[in-house]
Amino acid sequence: MKALVYHGPGKRSWEERPKPVIKDSTDAIVKIAKTTICGTDLHILKGDVPTVTDGRILGHEGVGIIEEVGPAVSNFKKGNRVLLSCITSCGRCEACKKGMYSHCENGGWILGNTIDGTQAEYVKIPFADTSLYHVPAGADEDALVMLSDILPTGYECGVLNGQIKPGDIVAIVGAGPVGLSALLTAEFYSPAEIIMIDTDDNRLDVAKKFGATKVINGKDGRAKDKVMEFTGKKGVDVAIEAVGIPATFELCEDIIAPGGHIANVGVHGKSVQLHLEKLWSQNVTITTRLVDTVTTPLLLKEVKAGKLRPRQLITHEFPLADIMEAYDTFGNAAKEKALKVLMKAA
Amino acid sequence: MKALVYHGPGKRSWEERPKPVIKDSTDAIVKIAKTTICGTDLHILKGDVPTVTDGRILGHEGVGIIEEVGPAVSNFKKGNRVLLSCITSCGRCEACKKGMYSHCENGGWILGNTIDGTQAEYVKIPFADTSLYHVPAGADEDALVMLSDILPTGYECGVLNGQIKPGDIVAIVGAGPVGLSALLTAEFYSPAEIIMIDTDDNRLDVAKKFGATKVINGKDGRAKDKVMEFTGKKGVDVAIEAVGIPATFELCEDIIAPGGHIANVGVHGKSVQLHLEKLWSQNVTITTRLVDTVTTPLLLKEVKAGKLRPRQLITHEFPLADIMEAYDTFGNAAKEKALKVLMKAA
Amino acid sequence: MKALVYHGPGKRSWEERPKPVIKDSTDAIVKIAKTTICGTDLHILKGDVPTVTDGRILGHEGVGIIEEVGPAVSNFKKGNRVLLSCITSCGRCEACKKGMYSHCENGGWILGNTIDGTQAEYVKIPFADTSLYHVPAGADEDALVMLSDILPTGYECGVLNGQIKPGDIVAIVGAGPVGLSALLTAEFYSPAEIIMIDTDDNRLDVAKKFGATKVINGKDGRAKDKVMEFTGKKGVDVAIEAVGIPATFELCEDIIAPGGHIANVGVHGKSVQLHLEKLWSQNVTITTRLVDTVTTPLLLKEVKAGKLRPRQLITHEFPLADIMEAYDTFGNAAKEKALKVLMKAA
Amino acid sequence: MKALVYHGPGKRSWEERPKPVIKDSTDAIVKIAKTTICGTDLHILKGDVPTVTDGRILGHEGVGIIEEVGPAVSNFKKGNRVLLSCITSCGRCEACKKGMYSHCENGGWILGNTIDGTQAEYVKIPFADTSLYHVPAGADEDALVMLSDILPTGYECGVLNGQIKPGDIVAIVGAGPVGLSALLTAEFYSPAEIIMIDTDDNRLDVAKKFGATKVINGKDGRAKDKVMEFTGKKGVDVAIEAVGIPATFELCEDIIAPGGHIANVGVHGKSVQLHLEKLWSQNVTITTRLVDTVTTPLLLKEVKAGKLRPRQLITHEFPLADIMEAYDTFGNAAKEKALKVLMKAA
Repeated sequence: MKALVYHGPGKRSWEERPKPVIKDSTDAIVKIAKTTICGTDLHILKGDVPTVTDGRILGHEGVGIIEEVGPAVSNFKKGNRVLLSCITSCGRCEACKKGMYSHCENGGWILGNTIDGTQAEYVKIPFADTSLYHVPAGADEDALVMLSDILPTGYECGVLNGQIKPGDIVAIVGAGPVGLSALLTAEFYSPAEIIMIDTDDNRLDVAKKFGATKVINGKDGRAKDKVMEFTGKKGVDVAIEAVGIPATFELCEDIIAPGGHIANVGVHGKSVQLHLEKLWSQNVTITTRLVDTVTTPLLLKEVKAGKLRPRQLITHEFPLADIMEAYDTFGNAAKEKALKVLMKAA
Repeated sequence: MKALVYHGPGKRSWEERPKPVIKDSTDAIVKIAKTTICGTDLHILKGDVPTVTDGRILGHEGVGIIEEVGPAVSNFKKGNRVLLSCITSCGRCEACKKGMYSHCENGGWILGNTIDGTQAEYVKIPFADTSLYHVPAGADEDALVMLSDILPTGYECGVLNGQIKPGDIVAIVGAGPVGLSALLTAEFYSPAEIIMIDTDDNRLDVAKKFGATKVINGKDGRAKDKVMEFTGKKGVDVAIEAVGIPATFELCEDIIAPGGHIANVGVHGKSVQLHLEKLWSQNVTITTRLVDTVTTPLLLKEVKAGKLRPRQLITHEFPLADIMEAYDTFGNAAKEKALKVLMKAA
Repeated sequence: MKALVYHGPGKRSWEERPKPVIKDSTDAIVKIAKTTICGTDLHILKGDVPTVTDGRILGHEGVGIIEEVGPAVSNFKKGNRVLLSCITSCGRCEACKKGMYSHCENGGWILGNTIDGTQAEYVKIPFADTSLYHVPAGADEDALVMLSDILPTGYECGVLNGQIKPGDIVAIVGAGPVGLSALLTAEFYSPAEIIMIDTDDNRLDVAKKFGATKVINGKDGRAKDKVMEFTGKKGVDVAIEAVGIPATFELCEDIIAPGGHIANVGVHGKSVQLHLEKLWSQNVTITTRLVDTVTTPLLLKEVKAGKLRPRQLITHEFPLADIMEAYDTFGNAAKEKALKVLMKAA
Repeated sequence: MKALVYHGPGKRSWEERPKPVIKDSTDAIVKIAKTTICGTDLHILKGDVPTVTDGRILGHEGVGIIEEVGPAVSNFKKGNRVLLSCITSCGRCEACKKGMYSHCENGGWILGNTIDGTQAEYVKIPFADTSLYHVPAGADEDALVMLSDILPTGYECGVLNGQIKPGDIVAIVGAGPVGLSALLTAEFYSPAEIIMIDTDDNRLDVAKKFGATKVINGKDGRAKDKVMEFTGKKGVDVAIEAVGIPATFELCEDIIAPGGHIANVGVHGKSVQLHLEKLWSQNVTITTRLVDTVTTPLLLKEVKAGKLRPRQLITHEFPLADIMEAYDTFGNAAKEKALKVLMKAA
């Protein structure tokens, strides 16, 4: 089969690889129908993720068709259409029992990381019963690809951890695919205001179309002042960090109201200054989280009910065979006005 | 009347001051029966709290007797014995309605800060109906003085924010009066282990007597290693910071298990490094809080039921008139083996 | 002044009464601008509410203008436009401190019940600081009258107690003003389905316009079957009872899924059969609640943000002086297709 | 092997049966070391549980040793000492993912009900990875048998659902093994008072030894009056029903304070009167639950930490071969002063 393979920093190729086979009784082989590229894949290609080694097939998102299942798999059979989760969950360790699949002792984020991933014609999914989801009848499969990673990430790490409630003023810092996913799922709770902050006007325009009630371009360094002015100097009830650098996290510290929640979503490479000399008395809550994908069933229901429309996150489509070109487009997201690129198998 | 007055950094005196009088209809005048000194009072004396100005009567803890009430006070009348709260709550602003009395728009921590405090023969309490509590019949009033500040502080900022539950492994960093208050109230929830970390062996001995299941003297810089070893490299479910310096907060970051809670109690003067490059994926929750004293009624019930015995926090007693000496003792806490010093009016 | 006065079962008149005066320092006198009639007022007129005695001015909803305040009132002053709450809260008793204003020791539901109410030119509001709310600048005051009672009732007793969340299937039994208020506020949480059940087709049509995804006319006694069929025999996640008779409560018991919530909103006059022989093992939660109006600030924010549009609940308008006729209309709600009738002062 | 077999109402025998064998890849065969008899087993023998048919081996509690595991079992291997859970959980259905194992689509309460149980020399456990627990090193295995059913039942259905918190006044109606389990685990949360109500003085004496702060013998029909008097007419914050008849449930309705929780634990055979004509406005929460055993890991930690001492629930011991006699003793619990009877394999 063909697959997108990582060969060290800066090197990727679309090449022939052996088709995966069932090894453990809980495995399933899935024929990929649709997949996409994540910002994390670009980080891997920069060499920033040391657990990914030369020869690894990348990708942790997608929709496909069950090709074969191991003898202990009972929820799925050949021919079923399935949503793949970026997180592999064994369902039987202490972390899984708590619903913290991200820290599964036997899984977690391993696809396209420590085991071969979904940017290929076939992929092997361990613990299939607890890591795959049936595609609901009549669902828009293109849209569902957005449920493998970015929507549960925005929802769990941003919206749920931020404890957004009706009437709240919410700020989301970063209007990339994950920040926009936080925006779309924040709307589940009807906050009074959603302020979107970014430095790219195109993304802020998208945010407005997606329902942001206020957008702020922070390029001039005045984002803090603008938020404080907009909120009558009170600050926001919930600040969601969806970038992953010190400056944006510290912006969240600057704009949070007493009693507020800062929900970190971004992947950080450096420590940040936590201004406890100011925040110690401010009754704030700060959370971090690697997505658990524990809300995938809920998100599937919301898609089916028409309350969540993930398709609008897809800006570009390619045949799976053109994935090398898709990477180029996604790698120049600002210039290409790209959010998510979708690749479809022939 | 006599009062302990602040006269700028390093200067305090026990001097004659006019007895306070009712000004607003919601005021009460309380004759102080017992009061104590807080670590914060020592900070004030160092000049670290700029809101406190020359001439201020210090103190925000105590038990007393109602001397007089304003016409709008309905819960209390002359002769009632009352517990004073370190937090003044108007009961009618947005913050008070949310139970966040610490950020009361008309109160908060003002006693012995922006208005005259309790280290005096009389004190004026604004918003008496919502800032005072009746002393239960038969209660040990000496013990109740501990409920003005340190016990709700340890309980709300440490234990409740840390979300301690049965079976948890808890670490409390700092075995001063507030850390020990967190220990005493952590026991309400029967955690499996409470690890107490300090650099003073005497305080660790006290912690053991109070129920800590493991004590660690961190003087050798190996506290992290010892905690990780004790927990089988998993870390703790809840880490309570009760010191207020970067090193102890970062220790909490080092020992927290995935999914765990870091509850800051300490008053910090500097920012700390938040290691998001490690913690972003660890599903941790970090909280800060200025005590709201919203749990004072609950704590009074626990004292009455014998589930909480605050008297053991009192190591020294003085007549109120000897408060200058009491400050000397409390100021040399390590040497004097002092936790809380109690001053009683004649 | 003129007022609508109760004179025993079946008897009401619009008659001259003395204008109320400040008695307690926390009182305010409010000139009524708009008021409405509640289903409860009809119950009173039937003689079903024994606490209401001959001579009582009815009404517990409205918007008005502060005419005068007592000396202890600090949040309001003459000329302020205010929303009246059906629940009077002293802000200082144990129940109020817990946010359970409905059980305020000094208030609760007293307006138009044990003290004179709002269907008059003027009303005295006790504990004004904690029982009134400022009308936000630019707000539609007609719409705000719906926030005195029915919207917080539907929201707190139905939606919040039912713990509605995204993806849920919700059934609301009863499409009267309170059931429709539950519908409007259920939408804050984006449930996947909202099934509305009533026996009046007109009200079901309204429910559809308000966003119900499925309506069921239960006249044929097949509501249970239809719900079970619609949900694939699983039942609903949340069932809200907004009628107040045994048959509708038992319908909720019949359609609730394992793990589900039954939130009672209806005012019941008789006991109901609780089928514990079936439900004991079904992990259900049943709640009751008299509205606390603790969410009034949140609802005001949602109205201001355009997420809640209460005006659509108003079907009829009258001058306040025509309140006798307004009662006739509201008393024949089905025939008149009446939901809420609004009376405006000249 | 030998097993205790049900042969229709009133008929049981200790007889030879074939040793169970692995059928599904997720099965385990466990050699029983210790088991016990549940009140439910007596109900079965009365013919009250129609799902149990002639020929069924009874029992759903015990500790044993893994004899053999299916190929898909990864958490356990031959020779491991294990705690059996009364609830079988597949870990992969919608209910299990929510932590509601009691409603597992492939399990739930099936042991000694729809499949053969634990009162035998060997038992087959389906979904072993998610239905068994390792016995902690050094644990008292006799005591652990109490963790198969009654302790998680008292804790989950009574204490957790009742939301007991420090300072609460709790009433537990029924001092049988499950009511006493609720008592032991209620103490995890340090309520101010635990009132135990029963009609058997011996059991009330036990309750006192176990930590009840007040016991009431309800034989004289004055339990309600006594509770109301003891609580100053306020009623209790939490009422736990651990009997399963209308009179005891209605007692809970009578004594619950506004804002309180009624947690049903009892297995009911008839409907009860729910007095909504009184309770509709009392802000109460009523819960039902079949034990999920989702807290077994927490309870194991509490046993290990010495915070929970289940051995005190065991009043009688028998060799497993004498189980017929053990049933006689347990069937005359009042006369024999029996709580739990333990049977040990030779």
